[in-house]
Amino acid sequence: MEVFYSNTIADGKIRLSPEETTHCVKVLRHKVGDEVKVSGGDGNLYRCTISDISGKSAELSIISIEGEFGKHPYYLHIAVAPTKNIDRYEWFLEKATEVGIDAITPILCAHSERKVVKEERQERVIIAAAKQSLKGEIPAAAPLTPVKEFIDSVRNFDGGKYICYCDSELINAEGNAIPRIPITEAIRRQTADGAELRSIVLIGPEGDFSLDEIHHAAAAGFIPVSLGESRLRTETAALTATLAHYLHCL
Amino acid sequence: MEVFYSNTIADGKIRLSPEETTHCVKVLRHKVGDEVKVSGGDGNLYRCTISDISGKSAELSIISIEGEFGKHPYYLHIAVAPTKNIDRYEWFLEKATEVGIDAITPILCAHSERKVVKEERQERVIIAAAKQSLKGEIPAAAPLTPVKEFIDSVRNFDGGKYICYCDSELINAEGNAIPRIPITEAIRRQTADGAELRSIVLIGPEGDFSLDEIHHAAAAGFIPVSLGESRLRTETAALTATLAHYLHCL
Repeated sequence: MEVFYSNTIADGKIRLSPEETTHCVKVLRHKVGDEVKVSGGDGNLYRCTISDISGKSAELSIISIEGEFGKHPYYLHIAVAPTKNIDRYEWFLEKATEVGIDAITPILCAHSERKVVKEERQERVIIAAAKQSLKGEIPAAAPLTPVKEFIDSVRNFDGGKYICYCDSELINAEGNAIPRIPITEAIRRQTADGAELRSIVLIGPEGDFSLDEIHHAAAAGFIPVSLGESRLRTETAALTATLAHYLHCL
Repeated sequence: MEVFYSNTIADGKIRLSPEETTHCVKVLRHKVGDEVKVSGGDGNLYRCTISDISGKSAELSIISIEGEFGKHPYYLHIAVAPTKNIDRYEWFLEKATEVGIDAITPILCAHSERKVVKEERQERVIIAAAKQSLKGEIPAAAPLTPVKEFIDSVRNFDGGKYICYCDSELINAEGNAIPRIPITEAIRRQTADGAELRSIVLIGPEGDFSLDEIHHAAAAGFIPVSLGESRLRTETAALTATLAHYLHCL
């Protein structure tokens, strides 16, 4: 199934961007009258006919709307320090979108090696993955945000807040090891009474979160979780956290 | 922790390849007498001192051996049709090794677009990932194998055998839909009585398995499993199956 993407929707009509029009008309050789499907990025799948092709833009007439298209049965927001090698971060954006995620925030940490993320490029990767994997809803992508600012902004989030870090022997101010539970166990506890699965997960940079950042997160209600014994790269850790949610709801 | 890799081990001595020697001596500037760690690819981590550096090769003396290094608590063999874009397949090799896998067999299917896999390159990607993620054991990588030949060769495997395919409305010879269970449920059933988790998972090409291949697998005891509602690319499906095993054992 081929799905186009457009968020220019009004009065029963959808307009395709020049890029999407080229793909539709030049590559797939669709003509006026053909039936096509469009993801609106708003959770809807629109069944349409092509009503007009003029120049670089195609106009479609909506026949029917399928709601909650490609929806996943959980809410997940991952805040992750983008990797030094941007390909690895973009790989995560693609895979997480493909699997199912609601929001992604790149975070700037004390040990971050990457201090810049191009928002346009981030959005392009996510939209391409959403289209390819037939998602009706496009995950929200935020600009690069200092980690403490992010933590403070989600203080009142209604759901589970988790922080993943590598070093297993972090000691708190009282001299005790900070305990961690496996992320799968955290998810089970959250949904034990039949509650909806709603999570924010923090994933640190290659050099891990600083102790100060972990304490800041813990003070804001983030629960330290473990992703197991394997030494995972940042982007693998972020996808593992995503798949822990996806697989839990299978 | 920096870990070198060598499988040239005899009489309490380890010899590093020219490539590993360059990394050890030129990049990391180690000298005779320095202590280094070596993964033998045999499940052991060797603590050594550098006893000799001559020309392109370094000789190390073993001080102590740590067994079952970086071991994961399950056995997993994934047989997957390599993707047309080889980067996507190699990405899977890297990520699966990082997470924990025992064997990978690239398979040739009726709908395969890729009909060649360079074995040397496949091995290089796996070894690099095993080193980076501190695995003592290097996953076994087989040459490209016709899928039915592969299915026949594992007929007597002691564990769960699973096949993932996309189309949910496949009909068997009797006109009934072939039922599928979620992979997480298959894993739970396999381990319900405390049995060790041991699996072989078949992942098809971009064009999916043919009905003939699915029937061949079913006749050999493969259980049809589902990876959920998301439309996953081949390499994402293969990693999702890997993480289903990893996360189950967390």
